[in-house]
Amino acid sequence: MKNIYATIITIGDELLIGQVIDTNSSWMAQQLNQIGIAVKKRVSIGDNAEDMRRALDIESKEADVILITGGLGPTADDITKEVLCEYFEGKMVLNEGALENVKYLFETIYKKPVSKVNLAQAEVPDVCEVIQNKRGSAPGMIFKRGGKIFISMPGVPYEMQGILNEVLPYLKEQFSLPAIIHKTILTAGIGESALAEMIAGFEKNLPEKIKLAYLPNYGMVRLRLTTSGFDRIATQKVIDGQFNELKELVKKYTVTNEDETMQVVLGKLLLNKNKTISTAESCTGGAIASLITSVPGSSSYFEGSIISYSYAVKENLLGVKNETLNKFGAVSEETVLEMLNGLLNKLNTDYGIAVSGIMGPDGGTPDRPVGTVWIAVGSKEKMIAQKIQQRFSRHKNIEVTSTMALNLMRKFILEQ
Amino acid sequence: MKNIYATIITIGDELLIGQVIDTNSSWMAQQLNQIGIAVKKRVSIGDNAEDMRRALDIESKEADVILITGGLGPTADDITKEVLCEYFEGKMVLNEGALENVKYLFETIYKKPVSKVNLAQAEVPDVCEVIQNKRGSAPGMIFKRGGKIFISMPGVPYEMQGILNEVLPYLKEQFSLPAIIHKTILTAGIGESALAEMIAGFEKNLPEKIKLAYLPNYGMVRLRLTTSGFDRIATQKVIDGQFNELKELVKKYTVTNEDETMQVVLGKLLLNKNKTISTAESCTGGAIASLITSVPGSSSYFEGSIISYSYAVKENLLGVKNETLNKFGAVSEETVLEMLNGLLNKLNTDYGIAVSGIMGPDGGTPDRPVGTVWIAVGSKEKMIAQKIQQRFSRHKNIEVTSTMALNLMRKFILEQ
Repeated sequence: MKNIYATIITIGDELLIGQVIDTNSSWMAQQLNQIGIAVKKRVSIGDNAEDMRRALDIESKEADVILITGGLGPTADDITKEVLCEYFEGKMVLNEGALENVKYLFETIYKKPVSKVNLAQAEVPDVCEVIQNKRGSAPGMIFKRGGKIFISMPGVPYEMQGILNEVLPYLKEQFSLPAIIHKTILTAGIGESALAEMIAGFEKNLPEKIKLAYLPNYGMVRLRLTTSGFDRIATQKVIDGQFNELKELVKKYTVTNEDETMQVVLGKLLLNKNKTISTAESCTGGAIASLITSVPGSSSYFEGSIISYSYAVKENLLGVKNETLNKFGAVSEETVLEMLNGLLNKLNTDYGIAVSGIMGPDGGTPDRPVGTVWIAVGSKEKMIAQKIQQRFSRHKNIEVTSTMALNLMRKFILEQ
Repeated sequence: MKNIYATIITIGDELLIGQVIDTNSSWMAQQLNQIGIAVKKRVSIGDNAEDMRRALDIESKEADVILITGGLGPTADDITKEVLCEYFEGKMVLNEGALENVKYLFETIYKKPVSKVNLAQAEVPDVCEVIQNKRGSAPGMIFKRGGKIFISMPGVPYEMQGILNEVLPYLKEQFSLPAIIHKTILTAGIGESALAEMIAGFEKNLPEKIKLAYLPNYGMVRLRLTTSGFDRIATQKVIDGQFNELKELVKKYTVTNEDETMQVVLGKLLLNKNKTISTAESCTGGAIASLITSVPGSSSYFEGSIISYSYAVKENLLGVKNETLNKFGAVSEETVLEMLNGLLNKLNTDYGIAVSGIMGPDGGTPDRPVGTVWIAVGSKEKMIAQKIQQRFSRHKNIEVTSTMALNLMRKFILEQ
């Protein structure tokens, strides 16, 4: 039995000039990993026939499965289908299933006339196997050559995902796949190098088959153990043993031992305790509420928020005293505590988060530089406030502050 | 004079298992484009010495500049520096500037003791030119071989950006670079294929040197014209002529003729008119406020928001009548109009946006399926409401709804 490797090729000029961020590759990589196919490489190239052929040549030497996204749209800049047709020495034919699908989409769903360019999307090379696209007009295509499998899908994430969901069982049938097992711990409140020193002894003694990675993001660090093996039970046992050891070592900083986000962990905690939450946000401008409500079912514990960007809203909706704002400023312990108090009185939730700070790039003062943030969390019975200092861009300052606020709330609830 | 091409190689196992999304490549590509270097290819590989050497071999044949990020951290899984040292046949030496920087960072900024692993970050191959990292402990490194330039930078976006900002002037000195000119139009309210038909004649007559791309995102489509040339003035003139023609053709759907986001366009409009705005959000959970406040300086026109996830908050803070909620439901024209009315009375802004809908994956009913959303925009004098139907994942439904709400608001303001 051998390991099966995949390369992901994403096609589109927009990927090379930085106009869009490639989210497809990550999602595809996750899905492939789950069924035991390791992604060895990811490649992005432009809508250029020569570059496509060269990438296909190079990557089919290194990988067993080549996943290709992009360049299947109805417009003239999309040439992937034509290039693949030529590369695999086929000729274009109309696919009846794809034609029906295009007609159905336009007539029934979009309620628009079907145009000639859309009808052309139902044409495919006669050397491929078609996977119908239920979410759009460009069908997926499977090609085979020299024992390698090439799968072409649209670049629109929602359409690609629909097609890949059908491709995964197909790939499982084609190969005998090992189990790839990842175990992750999300930590907060400790930096990457401090973590590394804390677990240096553990890392040194780790069996060679198990890889440890440090993944810093949003001001948190995720630790990941990875291994693979054809005997799932034995493989699982080895990694579980190591994981239990690691868990003990870092438990002081652990948010969760599952591969889940801070907002999911906080949501589960609130659900378990049957408690509700709300937020009062100034500098984060709704980002904390957005994180909380990104979780399906969050309406069970999230009541709402007051985003108070101006002094007027802080005073009128949250009841912050004008005197407090004038004496201590909007970014102060006194103000966030009054924001939190006002929030809990107005929204009547069990817990609340209040944040006020300066996210930049402008607005700093000598004693309150850009990045100064006050966070308060608590309940009507007890409130705590903490000052933090961010050192990043506006966007990243907002992200990291939001996650830190959720973590502070999480720890507060656990201590009650 | 010849075109100069770059390849971006990002290194890290996390890029291949889908645990993080690669935002670095997009940013780097944008910066390179601006100085006239075209990115030909992007490659992601794991923390694996053999894969790195192979990627360096392949890419240095195709590109003039090879930008490498990742694998420079202090932990054992980071091996990029060692691999580069061996690849370029150097040996590790302590760099005094990097050492000073590490000491300064830990002693003055982080206020933590400097550890042995951190000190090791000040070691670099003796065959490279060092670019000091003012935002972290891993220095940047420039290698040269066979007329090609290799630049290694940390994978942490904020640190990479700091180093690349110093690399760009260096690259400009090394090459005689052409002007690469992009012109973009952001459209909303029309699909990709309908747009393509509308401008089919224009596209057919476009000079070969100018490329047209359709970039759908967030339910909008961006049209981009691209060309390049060593004579900047002549090149600019050719593309400007075509761009003016394109602008006329799609002006009915145009949000902006600059490369800027919907939230930036709306912000400028409010600033110009000296008007203020607020939002009342249910299903978007703060995502609209987040978009508005992602723009630096938004505090000049954004007052705040009321996120009303529950009936109680809709009633108590926004004054939605209990009768309205019971009779028409939270997702109804009546409710969003009352939300908007309550918002404008409470926050006293010139304009307001109110949204209520069902984002999924659950919560739909036969007459209000998942994806049903009501949006209201307006002022105290005039309000309009519109029903839309989303067809995506929870995350994407929230994204697209938020952008559509901002666009509806923008159009409303333009009509006043």
